[in-house]
Amino acid sequence: MPAYTAPTKDIQFLLHDVLKVSASEVPGFADLDADTTGAILDEAGRLATEVLAPLNPVGDREGCRLENGVVYTPTGFKAAFEAMKEGGWNGLDLPEEFGGQGLPYLMGTAVGEIFVSANMAFNMYQGLTHGAIGAILAHASDELKATYLPKMVSLDWTGTMNLTEPHCGTDLGLIRTRAEPQGDGSYKITGQKIFISAGDHDLADNIIHLVLAKAPGGGEGTRGISLFIVPKFMVNADGSLGARNGAGPGKIEEKMGIHGNATCVMNFDGATGYLVGELHKGMRNMFTMMNEARLGVGLQGYAVAEAAYQAAVAYARDRLQGRAVTGAENPQGPADPLIVHPDIRRSLMDQKSFVEGARALTYWGAELIDRAHRTGDAKAEGMISLLTPVIKGFQTDRGFDMAVQAQQVFGGHGYIEEQGMSQFARDARIAMIYEGANGVQALDLVGRKLAQDGGKHVMAFFDMVKGFLKDNADHEGLQQGFLDPLKKASKDLQAAAMYFMQNGMKNPNAALAGSTDFLHLFGHTCLGLMWAKMARASFDALAAGSPDEDFHRTKIATGRYYMARQLPATGMHLARIESGAEPVMALDAAAF
Amino acid sequence: MPAYTAPTKDIQFLLHDVLKVSASEVPGFADLDADTTGAILDEAGRLATEVLAPLNPVGDREGCRLENGVVYTPTGFKAAFEAMKEGGWNGLDLPEEFGGQGLPYLMGTAVGEIFVSANMAFNMYQGLTHGAIGAILAHASDELKATYLPKMVSLDWTGTMNLTEPHCGTDLGLIRTRAEPQGDGSYKITGQKIFISAGDHDLADNIIHLVLAKAPGGGEGTRGISLFIVPKFMVNADGSLGARNGAGPGKIEEKMGIHGNATCVMNFDGATGYLVGELHKGMRNMFTMMNEARLGVGLQGYAVAEAAYQAAVAYARDRLQGRAVTGAENPQGPADPLIVHPDIRRSLMDQKSFVEGARALTYWGAELIDRAHRTGDAKAEGMISLLTPVIKGFQTDRGFDMAVQAQQVFGGHGYIEEQGMSQFARDARIAMIYEGANGVQALDLVGRKLAQDGGKHVMAFFDMVKGFLKDNADHEGLQQGFLDPLKKASKDLQAAAMYFMQNGMKNPNAALAGSTDFLHLFGHTCLGLMWAKMARASFDALAAGSPDEDFHRTKIATGRYYMARQLPATGMHLARIESGAEPVMALDAAAF
Repeated sequence: MPAYTAPTKDIQFLLHDVLKVSASEVPGFADLDADTTGAILDEAGRLATEVLAPLNPVGDREGCRLENGVVYTPTGFKAAFEAMKEGGWNGLDLPEEFGGQGLPYLMGTAVGEIFVSANMAFNMYQGLTHGAIGAILAHASDELKATYLPKMVSLDWTGTMNLTEPHCGTDLGLIRTRAEPQGDGSYKITGQKIFISAGDHDLADNIIHLVLAKAPGGGEGTRGISLFIVPKFMVNADGSLGARNGAGPGKIEEKMGIHGNATCVMNFDGATGYLVGELHKGMRNMFTMMNEARLGVGLQGYAVAEAAYQAAVAYARDRLQGRAVTGAENPQGPADPLIVHPDIRRSLMDQKSFVEGARALTYWGAELIDRAHRTGDAKAEGMISLLTPVIKGFQTDRGFDMAVQAQQVFGGHGYIEEQGMSQFARDARIAMIYEGANGVQALDLVGRKLAQDGGKHVMAFFDMVKGFLKDNADHEGLQQGFLDPLKKASKDLQAAAMYFMQNGMKNPNAALAGSTDFLHLFGHTCLGLMWAKMARASFDALAAGSPDEDFHRTKIATGRYYMARQLPATGMHLARIESGAEPVMALDAAAF
Repeated sequence: MPAYTAPTKDIQFLLHDVLKVSASEVPGFADLDADTTGAILDEAGRLATEVLAPLNPVGDREGCRLENGVVYTPTGFKAAFEAMKEGGWNGLDLPEEFGGQGLPYLMGTAVGEIFVSANMAFNMYQGLTHGAIGAILAHASDELKATYLPKMVSLDWTGTMNLTEPHCGTDLGLIRTRAEPQGDGSYKITGQKIFISAGDHDLADNIIHLVLAKAPGGGEGTRGISLFIVPKFMVNADGSLGARNGAGPGKIEEKMGIHGNATCVMNFDGATGYLVGELHKGMRNMFTMMNEARLGVGLQGYAVAEAAYQAAVAYARDRLQGRAVTGAENPQGPADPLIVHPDIRRSLMDQKSFVEGARALTYWGAELIDRAHRTGDAKAEGMISLLTPVIKGFQTDRGFDMAVQAQQVFGGHGYIEEQGMSQFARDARIAMIYEGANGVQALDLVGRKLAQDGGKHVMAFFDMVKGFLKDNADHEGLQQGFLDPLKKASKDLQAAAMYFMQNGMKNPNAALAGSTDFLHLFGHTCLGLMWAKMARASFDALAAGSPDEDFHRTKIATGRYYMARQLPATGMHLARIESGAEPVMALDAAAF
């Protein structure tokens, strides 16, 4: 069973050496001194290592079950959820007004990573609640907020998001769930939703479903959609729970992974619902939550890969097989450990350099969200809007690949369930699909975000890279292996954007045929920038006489690996993009 | 539940238009006229579609179970195995002397693809028997052959391969299973083997285990290893079955996939065994079977991807979601089918162009095996020896990626088990691991095969590409999108080989750090060559006035896609290789 230790040192490095949070002008960041964040991370790490990680294989093995309309979570989940509640973890970055601690979203992200690495399926019960709270905070009336938020922040109640229906996922304009006004301000909601994570369970007293439905008079397509709160149990005026509402699980899906989370078919049979925000503006209201939700899924991509990587390193150090080609390194033993073999190193370095780069990108994204929310900075809002599909799509594609690579280190032992490596691959797989399948992320990036606000956000990104290169042109350390690859990647990215601009207007397929490649090209460039920034921070720390010399030298070497071995992918993606729509669209649909 | 139809037209195209089998001078090939092969493929396709494919999800869901020492296969497997037996499919390419039909291995490979696509886990019971027969044919005494082969060829008895032990897989020199001579020519075999596919089951009257064990006097490491036949039931002089031998399943592993195949821990407790071939030459005897066994696993890589691709195409045509960016294509319906979207096209073209290219490479490999065996052609033997790790490693890595892409086309529906797409991904995963994990394939390629016989086989490969380019330099059709990319890929491959030659001698890690990249670089170049050859065959067919114009135009367009969109990967792999060992080996083992 894989053990997990929170990478607190790496997280602290990002918060304090790279993002320099306590020197930030963003309100609330100044409180995040190294001692405070260290104490929070240690506490989260303890819960993750001692409680959540040991339950990860249990959840996978047992799954959830539906009996007589009641969903039961795996053994131990209820006690762990109580521990999560008692720690106040859900409220860490939520408003004090509703019982939270009001820390930055960035801090919630760092803690979230630790919980996801330890037990992704379990953490979704809390994660979805957090997302539902965000939507209510942003759009619901004060009365609804007062009724629902305190109990949700405390995790006495959990939340869900109900979008998908059997015949539509991406194309929500097709939804059939209806909302009929009742004259008393409430609505009757009728329809079926599928793939509802944490749709029902035995961890909380009540479940607050956020449901997209069509109310009369809204017109066709997505314009007719509104957002409703539909509680599992009605809430009385005094806050106590009343009758069961007409909303419940019809089935639990058998899935490839995340077995510990109950993925439900939800039936709404004239269930009482309450409008959140304006009528017929439901899509917009859901979309304001999208950046955070998608960043959270992008986080899952690397967080599961981190857990898998830790297990792969332990196995590679322990398992004796073959001899180093340069001469025995464990001559007393029957064989050398796997970690001496160059191809195993290659695999571990792929994993390590991806995970640390993706962590940096995710935290930067979280910082941009804080900056946008806390200071109203439109540039930060534009930048995170641009980066969101990259963080979600690139990190979950690559995160899955890395979980598969970690599994591969185990050879045959990686394929049997006993070792836990299969679970990492199976769990990581969902992150490429939900919260907008990665093809939809690529479409969002190329079809919408690239040209948003006249393309000024992508220009800001290029300027940022250019600025970094200029500021560090004379930096001897960065000259070795960082600056040139970053410049080349950024040039490839610009060439691709240029290709879309020149060809996309007359033939939109020319851009869309290259959308997934562009997403990956952008992702690699982002990670190249992150590694250059991390290397700079480590060089600075070494120059300042940091006692942690090994840590910083390892950081720089890991960065050099990413630049040398991963950034060459940008040229391939550019070549594919520049081959255009013709090869992609050449065949009739019947010819497949 | 995914349906499956054998791609007989594509297979016939390879056999007759590309490989031109009936014009071949290899003994036995002349009998393979198009009517004969068509009839065989149709019959195999019928069995696959009607019997094997419907059982694929059943096997996944039910798995195998071990009760009181007896292994039970999933519902329906026994009847299907009877159908496989009655069709004489196992003997198709085995010697007539032992009850087979004596057709070329190439024909067995084509039929094998169809069965693997339909039901990989089921087909392993037959596939492993086929492999065990090969080892017995090549090395056992006439007496052992007479005793075991007829029943194995007919599938009354099945076979297994017992190599791995709990503490060693790749490094077989470490095995602990012992063989004690009994003075009567037999041995007592004692030890434990793990991950034994089809180790025990209820499909056949007897199971013939091939077991690697150490007999006294052989010295340390792999030199001390011998190969033994260990039957589940002793065989009497008259061929009837006697007492149960001391060999049986201790446990069935819970695995990520191929649930329909019983992966057993096998315990040998003083079991009676019979030496196959020379004492202490067991490794060599196993290795002579390696090319075929590994080609068979490489076949699994694309065969499962083919089945997944067929399901993805059906779903992409059927599922209505969103509108084509160039204007509605299904204006009467609520939305357009997925297949109108460029990124879905991109994914389907990735899958299609990989599967068809890999099929061509695999059949060429099978033809080389036939040529080597039937004519003693040392060049063919050398070429297949070189290509084997490429076929195994590249095709299973990419085949898994393509199964994952096919699953992705289904969005959320791909993640639930009901649709069968998760099974394809989970089943395909094992092919990257067994029969030598892909890292070991890369090591074999770079560390052994590249320099084998003074490097003359890789030179022969380059000459073949050069010859093709020269012969077709003036071919107008191939000038458009085929010749230049193939030339570029081949140049990248040569540069990589050159890098290894120049750096590998002084620092072996410089070669081995690039081994997986080299495997993929080689694989892409092979598929580029295959596509150029297929395109040439299709151009020729069109010029000859083939009535199948659509088929050949589709072939050429699919080839152009591979050249434009996949071959650019070679430059990336070369850049990684040329970055050398330093970034890969920079860290101390403790720094991970």
